[in-house]
Amino acid sequence: MQYTENGPLGYYFEEIEIDKPLVTRGRTVTESDIVQFAALTGDYNPMHTNAEYMKSHPMGQRVAHGMLTLSYAVGQLYQLGFMERTVLAFRGLEMKFSLPVLIGDTIHVRLTVKEKKEMKRLGGGIVSAEIKILNQDGKTVQSGTMELLMASKPTT
Amino acid sequence: MQYTENGPLGYYFEEIEIDKPLVTRGRTVTESDIVQFAALTGDYNPMHTNAEYMKSHPMGQRVAHGMLTLSYAVGQLYQLGFMERTVLAFRGLEMKFSLPVLIGDTIHVRLTVKEKKEMKRLGGGIVSAEIKILNQDGKTVQSGTMELLMASKPTT
Amino acid sequence: MQYTENGPLGYYFEEIEIDKPLVTRGRTVTESDIVQFAALTGDYNPMHTNAEYMKSHPMGQRVAHGMLTLSYAVGQLYQLGFMERTVLAFRGLEMKFSLPVLIGDTIHVRLTVKEKKEMKRLGGGIVSAEIKILNQDGKTVQSGTMELLMASKPTT
Amino acid sequence: MQYTENGPLGYYFEEIEIDKPLVTRGRTVTESDIVQFAALTGDYNPMHTNAEYMKSHPMGQRVAHGMLTLSYAVGQLYQLGFMERTVLAFRGLEMKFSLPVLIGDTIHVRLTVKEKKEMKRLGGGIVSAEIKILNQDGKTVQSGTMELLMASKPTT
Amino acid sequence: MQYTENGPLGYYFEEIEIDKPLVTRGRTVTESDIVQFAALTGDYNPMHTNAEYMKSHPMGQRVAHGMLTLSYAVGQLYQLGFMERTVLAFRGLEMKFSLPVLIGDTIHVRLTVKEKKEMKRLGGGIVSAEIKILNQDGKTVQSGTMELLMASKPTT
Amino acid sequence: MQYTENGPLGYYFEEIEIDKPLVTRGRTVTESDIVQFAALTGDYNPMHTNAEYMKSHPMGQRVAHGMLTLSYAVGQLYQLGFMERTVLAFRGLEMKFSLPVLIGDTIHVRLTVKEKKEMKRLGGGIVSAEIKILNQDGKTVQSGTMELLMASKPTT
Repeated sequence: MQYTENGPLGYYFEEIEIDKPLVTRGRTVTESDIVQFAALTGDYNPMHTNAEYMKSHPMGQRVAHGMLTLSYAVGQLYQLGFMERTVLAFRGLEMKFSLPVLIGDTIHVRLTVKEKKEMKRLGGGIVSAEIKILNQDGKTVQSGTMELLMASKPTT
Repeated sequence: MQYTENGPLGYYFEEIEIDKPLVTRGRTVTESDIVQFAALTGDYNPMHTNAEYMKSHPMGQRVAHGMLTLSYAVGQLYQLGFMERTVLAFRGLEMKFSLPVLIGDTIHVRLTVKEKKEMKRLGGGIVSAEIKILNQDGKTVQSGTMELLMASKPTT
Repeated sequence: MQYTENGPLGYYFEEIEIDKPLVTRGRTVTESDIVQFAALTGDYNPMHTNAEYMKSHPMGQRVAHGMLTLSYAVGQLYQLGFMERTVLAFRGLEMKFSLPVLIGDTIHVRLTVKEKKEMKRLGGGIVSAEIKILNQDGKTVQSGTMELLMASKPTT
Repeated sequence: MQYTENGPLGYYFEEIEIDKPLVTRGRTVTESDIVQFAALTGDYNPMHTNAEYMKSHPMGQRVAHGMLTLSYAVGQLYQLGFMERTVLAFRGLEMKFSLPVLIGDTIHVRLTVKEKKEMKRLGGGIVSAEIKILNQDGKTVQSGTMELLMASKPTT
Repeated sequence: MQYTENGPLGYYFEEIEIDKPLVTRGRTVTESDIVQFAALTGDYNPMHTNAEYMKSHPMGQRVAHGMLTLSYAVGQLYQLGFMERTVLAFRGLEMKFSLPVLIGDTIHVRLTVKEKKEMKRLGGGIVSAEIKILNQDGKTVQSGTMELLMASKPTT
Repeated sequence: MQYTENGPLGYYFEEIEIDKPLVTRGRTVTESDIVQFAALTGDYNPMHTNAEYMKSHPMGQRVAHGMLTLSYAVGQLYQLGFMERTVLAFRGLEMKFSLPVLIGDTIHVRLTVKEKKEMKRLGGGIVSAEIKILNQDGKTVQSGTMELLMASKPTT
C-alpha cells in the first residue's frame, strides 16, 4: 500500500508478485459476530443460534457460519491495503471448509498469488490467489482460491 | 420442511431429490445492508462505501459486496427449511460472480441438486447443488455449486 | 424525572398521576430500521424486506413490522424517564394495529394512566395505561393498554 | 409451507387448521441480542443494560426486554413458513409476561389456532391463535393471543 | 427535563445552572459493544478485536475504544433530557483518556457546567461543561470539557 | 505500513515523520450510519433521528452526530495502517466542530504530525497530530489535535 494525496493506493496488476505470501491481522470471532451474521443473512440454523440444541450435537457448542468466516477473511484481506482502488472486480472463488470456527477463536488469512493472466480488454488482469484461513493454533479452517480482476498501472 | 413437535425439520439425505429446483423468497438489497456488511466484515472498499468515488467509476454507483450477495443467498436457502436440523456441515463452494448487485436490487436463489454421494462414515451423504442467484430481471448475478453434508434418516 | 446523585430517577407508584397524558419525542422510521429489525428478529416477511414484491401488493411499498413500531414505542416511553429505576416489571399488553407505518413516517407515543392498583406484596402497584402510537399526521397507527408494575416510594 | 416456482408459500385462510399446534425452532437469547435490542429501540432501562445495578436488584442479573422476547417470537413464527405470502396483516395481540428471559436462555414458541372468522370484505379471514413462548425448561415466559388476517385461497 | 404536549423539553441557556453536577444512568460496556463499534467505525485495532494478541499485551485483554467510551458518554448525557430540543449544536471537546475500559465495566458520566457565555447572534449561548466519565469503582476513565450551544428561552 | 509474517505493521515512534500529511480513504455517511450510531450510543437527539422535526429547524434536515464523524475519522485513520500494532494508547484529543455532516456527505481525514516527545518510561513517545476532517467539497467539518502514544522500535 502506498500513501498518496488522494488516500491509500494498492498495487496494480503489474506490481503484484507471485508466490509472495501476504498475512492479515487476526480477529477474534465472538458470540456477537455470530448473532449479527445470523441476523443480517437470515441464516438462523440452530448450529449457529441455539446453544441448547448444540449441547447434544457432535460439535458440542455453537459454531460460526462458514460464510461468516469467509466474509471476514475477505474483509481482513481488504484491510491489508494491497487492493485499495486497484481491484476492479471479485471474479469468483472456490473454497473447502475443513474445521469449524468456535466462539473465541481468532482467525487470520494467508494469501499467495499463484497466477497472473493479462486481460487488456478488461483494463488489467486476473490474479489467482491461494487462500488459507487459519485459527490461533495455526490450523487451516478453510482453504481455496480467489480470482480478482486487478487494474493495470495507468500510463502517463 | 415438516412440522414436528420439536420444531421444523428438513429433508434427510435419502429424501433429497435430484434435478428438482427449489426457489427462495426474494430480498431487496438496501444501502443499509451494504453499510452493515462493510462494517461487520471490515471490507470498506470504496466500491461499497464511497458514493462520491463511484461517480467517476465505470459502475457509476456503489455496488454490494460479492460476499454479501453470496452470504444472503445462503441465508435465503436456509430459510427454505429443507436443511433444518438435517444439514451436518457446509463442505465447500465454487462460485462465479457475473453481475453487480446494486442498491435496490432484489435477489432470490434457485438451487438444484445435481449429485448425491453416500458417506456412511459421516452419517449421511454429500449433496452437490447448482446455485443460481438471480436479480429482479431474472438475470444471474452469481452461479456455481455448493456441497452440503446431509444427515441420513435415523433408523428406528 | 428527577436528577439525583445516583442518576435520573422516575416516579414511584404513589407519584404516578391518573389521566395526565405523557407525550414522547418523535422518531422517523427509516429503511435501515426495518432492515435491522427484520434481521434481529428473523421476521423476513416480504412485506418488510422485498420492495419488488410490494410493487404489486395492495400496500404498494414495504411497511414496518407491527412489532417494530410497538418496540420503538416502548423505547420512546422509556426515554421519557418516568419509569427510571421505578418500574419493576412489564406485566402485559393488549394492542390493536390500525394503520401501517411506512418508510419515512415519524412516530411518537401518548401514554395516559387510567388505573392504579396497589399490590403491597409485590412492593408497589400495577399501573394500567392507555397507549396511542401516532404518526406525523396525528393518525393512530396502534393503540391499546400496557400494564406496568411500579415500585412504591421507599419509606425512610 | 409449500415449495412453488415463485418461492415458498404458506397456508391460506381455508387451509389453516384449528387446534393443531405449531412449534418453532429454538433460539438462544445472548447478551449481544439484548445490547442490540436496547440500541435499536432506545429502551436503555438499567434492568437490560447495567450489570452493576442488577447485582443488588431482586433479579440479580440483566434480563431481556419483554418486547425482545415477543418480537423474537414473532420472527420465529414467521420462519415456520405457514404465513409466507398468505398473511395480509397483523391485527393485534394480547400478551401476559410471566417469567424473565435471562442471558443464555433458549426460547421457542408454540402457536395453536383457536378461532377462524371469515372476512370476505378483507379478502380472507381473521385467525386467532394462542401463543406460548417457552424457555429451555419448558416454562412459559409469555403467553397470550395474536390475531392475523390471512388471505383466502385464490379461485382459479 | 419538562413534560410538554410536544414531548420532553430540556433547559434553555438561561435556565442552565453553573456548578450543579448532573449524573447519568450507568451502562455496562459489553464485548458486543466493542464488536459493533469496531464494525461501525472501521477501527479494527487488535487491541479491540484480537483476544489472542492481547494475551501477551501489557493490558492482558481487549479494551474498549476511547471513542466508544466518549460516544457512549455523550449518549448517556443526551438521555438525561436536559438538552432535549434546547441544544443547537455541539461545538467542541477536549478530553484526556486516563484508564482503559474493559469488557464488563460499567460507566456513567458526571457533567458540571463551569461557564456560560451569551451569544445573542447565535440565538443562545455557549455552555462549557466539565465532563468526567467514571467506572464502577468511581475511577475516572476520561475527563475534559465540552462546549454546547444552547438555545435561549423563547420570548412570548 | 509494512507487510510482515505476523501481519501488517505500522510505524514506530522513531519512524514517524513530522509535517508529512497522511490522507485517508473517503467514506459516505448514510442514513443507516446515523440510525446505527444513534442506536449504539443512545443519542436519540431529534436532530439526528426525527426527519419531521428537522423540516422546521434551521438545518432543514437530519445531521450526523458530531461524535459519529469523529469516531469514523479515527476508524479511517486506523485503516491507514500506520498505527498497526505500534500505537500503545490514545491519550487525548481536542476538537472543534465547524460544519454539519449531512446524509450523503463523504468524509475523509488529513493527519499531520506536528510534534514528537520521547517518553522512555512509557516505552515510546507522544505524537501530537493535527487532524482535519473534510467533506466532498474539501471543506473542513471538524479540526483539532490528537495525542497518540506510539511504541519505540524494538532493539534487537
